[in-house]
Amino acid sequence: MPKLVVPLVAAMLFALPARAEPADRALIEDLVVANHILYAEGVVDGFGHVSARHDKDPSHFLLARSMAPALVTAEDILEFDLVGNAVDANGRALYFERFIHSAIYKARPDVKAIVHSHSPSVIPFGATAVALRPIYHMSAFLGGGAPVFEIRDAGGDGTDMLVRNPQLGEALAASLGGAAVALMRGHGDVVVADSLKLVVFRAIYTELNAKLEGEALLIGQGRVNFLTDKEAVAAAATNSPLVGRAWDLWKLKAMGGR
Amino acid sequence: MPKLVVPLVAAMLFALPARAEPADRALIEDLVVANHILYAEGVVDGFGHVSARHDKDPSHFLLARSMAPALVTAEDILEFDLVGNAVDANGRALYFERFIHSAIYKARPDVKAIVHSHSPSVIPFGATAVALRPIYHMSAFLGGGAPVFEIRDAGGDGTDMLVRNPQLGEALAASLGGAAVALMRGHGDVVVADSLKLVVFRAIYTELNAKLEGEALLIGQGRVNFLTDKEAVAAAATNSPLVGRAWDLWKLKAMGGR
Amino acid sequence: MPKLVVPLVAAMLFALPARAEPADRALIEDLVVANHILYAEGVVDGFGHVSARHDKDPSHFLLARSMAPALVTAEDILEFDLVGNAVDANGRALYFERFIHSAIYKARPDVKAIVHSHSPSVIPFGATAVALRPIYHMSAFLGGGAPVFEIRDAGGDGTDMLVRNPQLGEALAASLGGAAVALMRGHGDVVVADSLKLVVFRAIYTELNAKLEGEALLIGQGRVNFLTDKEAVAAAATNSPLVGRAWDLWKLKAMGGR
Amino acid sequence: MPKLVVPLVAAMLFALPARAEPADRALIEDLVVANHILYAEGVVDGFGHVSARHDKDPSHFLLARSMAPALVTAEDILEFDLVGNAVDANGRALYFERFIHSAIYKARPDVKAIVHSHSPSVIPFGATAVALRPIYHMSAFLGGGAPVFEIRDAGGDGTDMLVRNPQLGEALAASLGGAAVALMRGHGDVVVADSLKLVVFRAIYTELNAKLEGEALLIGQGRVNFLTDKEAVAAAATNSPLVGRAWDLWKLKAMGGR
Repeated sequence: MPKLVVPLVAAMLFALPARAEPADRALIEDLVVANHILYAEGVVDGFGHVSARHDKDPSHFLLARSMAPALVTAEDILEFDLVGNAVDANGRALYFERFIHSAIYKARPDVKAIVHSHSPSVIPFGATAVALRPIYHMSAFLGGGAPVFEIRDAGGDGTDMLVRNPQLGEALAASLGGAAVALMRGHGDVVVADSLKLVVFRAIYTELNAKLEGEALLIGQGRVNFLTDKEAVAAAATNSPLVGRAWDLWKLKAMGGR
Repeated sequence: MPKLVVPLVAAMLFALPARAEPADRALIEDLVVANHILYAEGVVDGFGHVSARHDKDPSHFLLARSMAPALVTAEDILEFDLVGNAVDANGRALYFERFIHSAIYKARPDVKAIVHSHSPSVIPFGATAVALRPIYHMSAFLGGGAPVFEIRDAGGDGTDMLVRNPQLGEALAASLGGAAVALMRGHGDVVVADSLKLVVFRAIYTELNAKLEGEALLIGQGRVNFLTDKEAVAAAATNSPLVGRAWDLWKLKAMGGR
Repeated sequence: MPKLVVPLVAAMLFALPARAEPADRALIEDLVVANHILYAEGVVDGFGHVSARHDKDPSHFLLARSMAPALVTAEDILEFDLVGNAVDANGRALYFERFIHSAIYKARPDVKAIVHSHSPSVIPFGATAVALRPIYHMSAFLGGGAPVFEIRDAGGDGTDMLVRNPQLGEALAASLGGAAVALMRGHGDVVVADSLKLVVFRAIYTELNAKLEGEALLIGQGRVNFLTDKEAVAAAATNSPLVGRAWDLWKLKAMGGR
Repeated sequence: MPKLVVPLVAAMLFALPARAEPADRALIEDLVVANHILYAEGVVDGFGHVSARHDKDPSHFLLARSMAPALVTAEDILEFDLVGNAVDANGRALYFERFIHSAIYKARPDVKAIVHSHSPSVIPFGATAVALRPIYHMSAFLGGGAPVFEIRDAGGDGTDMLVRNPQLGEALAASLGGAAVALMRGHGDVVVADSLKLVVFRAIYTELNAKLEGEALLIGQGRVNFLTDKEAVAAAATNSPLVGRAWDLWKLKAMGGR
């Protein structure tokens, strides 16, 4: 039985999942910073959330209690299992949509961090038949395509649009497949990556790509010269190690340094 | 005779309406905060206003004297009756358009708070035949439709566009009907809700929905996948209890905390 | 001979125009504030200028030396005659385009204040055949039309686009006619009013009207329900006395109070 | 042999290029300021760079080590030769795309400063067949045309979009030719000038021109009245000596003075 599955099954057997060894302090601090950066850069407002897979236990992940991302502190970070149960809520309110995170961490062992938001420029793409594609190298990670999750297919007409249970989370994870980004029709998007800094980078440039692609489609009357698949793969590989440069700036700005 | 009608009739019999028991201090403080939030979030500029129904006397409501919303303090809040007379003006200038508020509170007992603004992204919708519809769950309250108030129908050609008397107020209230939002052609909009926090939430997401719907209509060449009626009802019901999360953030930002 | 013409003729007879009685201190201070407001509200950047007719001598006007508006102080305000000569330059550099102001003050005795800027949203209207028209009551002053000044007609092909002499100033004033705003093709616009506070108000809402009209034209596919002429006249008359409400807010924001 | 070629050949003969006489302290300080201005004005974000030709040795140029422009200090400025080798890196990371600078300084002796950025409004022009042209006098320097560099022509399909070697740098310089601006498809742009203040001015108004041209193309349905070639030449000549006025304001804002 592979390593990952053991704690997962354990968590599913017991109603109250066991708390893992405490997560790395630096990871928690970065998660707090990620919350603030996403607000400062206009990806989240009073809603939206970002999580990180637990560094010591891949069957657990870290996510704030239900609150505005811009106000999150280390004390607000809770630990969840891959069914979406909180280990240490102590009565604190949980995000209805924690199942976005639990389902994707379960389906995608490569994913270490997830952002869910109502990224404004992305909304029009989720609500139309227009595909989100990489208009420049900064958003090369979109080269793999950004599928649209239609909650009507998974939950029928009349849902409240929220991914509020494991079944809807699994349907979203299935839509996402192996991509970096999935759009959620009438709702927002979900962005994944193999690190917290990379997922923040991707969330910010997903927003910017949507804005710029929208402008290009209009002035170009629908004809836009996107990155080719090969360009997207090469550019994404180059960019990933450089995200620290942007993170340092965003952190300084979000945490009051500039 | 139902409870609501008694003070209403009383107020209409006397030229100088009696002052009700003082309103809850917390309500007045929230109304001050609402004024500042609406400015900080770009819904109002030097013009526009927000009111709350009096918590002790449903035939009265609270509204600032004529001034820029961003500068309102508790001392600037006046009390009005449902004909639009101020109880305690003491010579202070009144908004010409207080009749927006008085007429709607009279017609809609369910309404506890009202925002009137020149919300920028909404203006193009009031001036064209394009309907404002919910593009995502945050603005699900638009599911009931956002009728357009055409002042030319009520006041003829040549008004100064202001709802400056009870008759125009009643015409606007009739256009609004049971909806959460009415657009005012060549002017702005009016947003209502059953609480101050909810009306601020709705005013902010009405502005954002208009911006995003405009973008979607252009890139989608008019074809947009809006929330269905059933989705809108379900999502609006889910969102209403969550508005405090956004309010706390907006308040902190508007009042200088962040 | 009417009062206005005497000092005007006098100024034109002498090469070095006489300095008038000092202008009202409050007028100079408001002119400094106007410079800062126009920058804070995005009407001017490092370029653009605002002037006021001298309160004691209608044949003179006040305008800063050549500098960025946001940095203007009372010491930078110079006095000019209606030919565009500075009374008290003392070697300080002058705006090349002071003739915009001198020519309009000469042609329009009703005008007491003028803004010239590269107001961003207005540029597309000057460069296309699309008319700037009042989309809502805040910009009702556009009801009189906003003619376009084509410098190629006045100066031929190959000017540097600047209104850099009295003859070009007169051509611009002729284009303006009796309107409140004239667009300058490939350059910006000029806005006039009978007071400094009103001209600032008009400059800010000209920018906003252009932005919103552009959006409305796109979503409405060219069909927009503008204010009628009668609505525009009535609304402009209502708004003029209210501009102090917006001025107080803009001043506080621009001068560091908020 | 002309003066410029001697140190150039010398630099190419030796693996470790000799350090020139120290650059003027004021030039280095202006280069630091230029980095901060470009961030504050939205031309660069965490990525992008600006360089200046060495004032004592035209075969060398100054450019920061690999970092976010907004964080650059004088200590981060390195010296490079025209092959793109750093004289004094001491192990510090270099921008992959320093070859943009080295190749253009080599090809264009008139160029004294270069900005490379992902200037947001410019991206749609690089990705469509729509030409960037001067919509107003502030961007008259675009009158010479803004050619598009297609990296697929120079590097084939599958590059990571970066100008990461001398050969790609030379191809970019060839695309630029004698122009002030070249667009880079799927990437950004490069802007050149004969001084640091002028290149910053041009980079900022290139961004603004792209935004305004995009809007004009949409409302004008493709018909825009651009500056003629003669107007562009005359206006560019007038503007160049005035850039100090804007620089002073941008500097104050970027360095915390306003």
